[in-house]
Amino acid sequence: MSHGAELFRELETASPGTTVQLPHLLENMKWNDLGLVPAIAQQHDSGEVLMMAWMNEATLHETLSTGRVCYWSRSRNRPWRKGESSGQQQRLIEMRLDCDGDTLLLLVDQQGAACHTGRRSCFYTRLTHEKGEVVDAPLVDPEILYGNSK
Amino acid sequence: MSHGAELFRELETASPGTTVQLPHLLENMKWNDLGLVPAIAQQHDSGEVLMMAWMNEATLHETLSTGRVCYWSRSRNRPWRKGESSGQQQRLIEMRLDCDGDTLLLLVDQQGAACHTGRRSCFYTRLTHEKGEVVDAPLVDPEILYGNSK
Repeated sequence: MSHGAELFRELETASPGTTVQLPHLLENMKWNDLGLVPAIAQQHDSGEVLMMAWMNEATLHETLSTGRVCYWSRSRNRPWRKGESSGQQQRLIEMRLDCDGDTLLLLVDQQGAACHTGRRSCFYTRLTHEKGEVVDAPLVDPEILYGNSK
Repeated sequence: MSHGAELFRELETASPGTTVQLPHLLENMKWNDLGLVPAIAQQHDSGEVLMMAWMNEATLHETLSTGRVCYWSRSRNRPWRKGESSGQQQRLIEMRLDCDGDTLLLLVDQQGAACHTGRRSCFYTRLTHEKGEVVDAPLVDPEILYGNSK
């Protein structure tokens, strides 16, 4: 069995249908110093990129087994079951790993707003060489989502 | 003028059309210890998420001014003008910043394969609770893209 970067080099030339057992793959992923990898959430049908957050091995496992997306919150230093305060949950449709084993793509079904501001997506500021401009409005008032708990 | 997280808190409740000068925005973004932020590249029309790489302030500026995507290569420790070896360039259509100023979304027009394996996207391994499975085949042989230079 191949280890670390070697495993991912082998997968580069592997044909569709080639499989690797999950524990072996997780062991060889490039987790950062905090044991995390970035996870991009994309709405599975519209293709909209909703947000980026982080997962460790435990929250990755939990997400795959429950089908409800669970990140690792770096600010709160604990698992973050998306929607636990706001009700705006993410159901996992499919999870993908990138070529060098250090980034996840989550195809999800997002209920309501992914962003804590009440916007559908976190990427609501457009940058040009002159300025940043807010281009999307909230779908819902975050006060309604979080009340006084925010 | 607001600084750091404060600026992004103000933008949370800003109406569409609100603008911030680019230098002020860049100054307040959350760059990591290496002065980088992750940048997600998405094909602008199909919505396909192609790859994730990193940008520093200089490569972000270069990308906005030239319209050709330039990342910061962490392995080579230098600017990486996407496609400089492979010819598979990315033209920038639009750049977005997320709500807390630490992640970019690039809407691009990708020529050919975004992935160094010759696949359209780097996210070609599907994870389930049992296994990882390669699910996409290369569009083009990477030997043709990189020859002996790889």
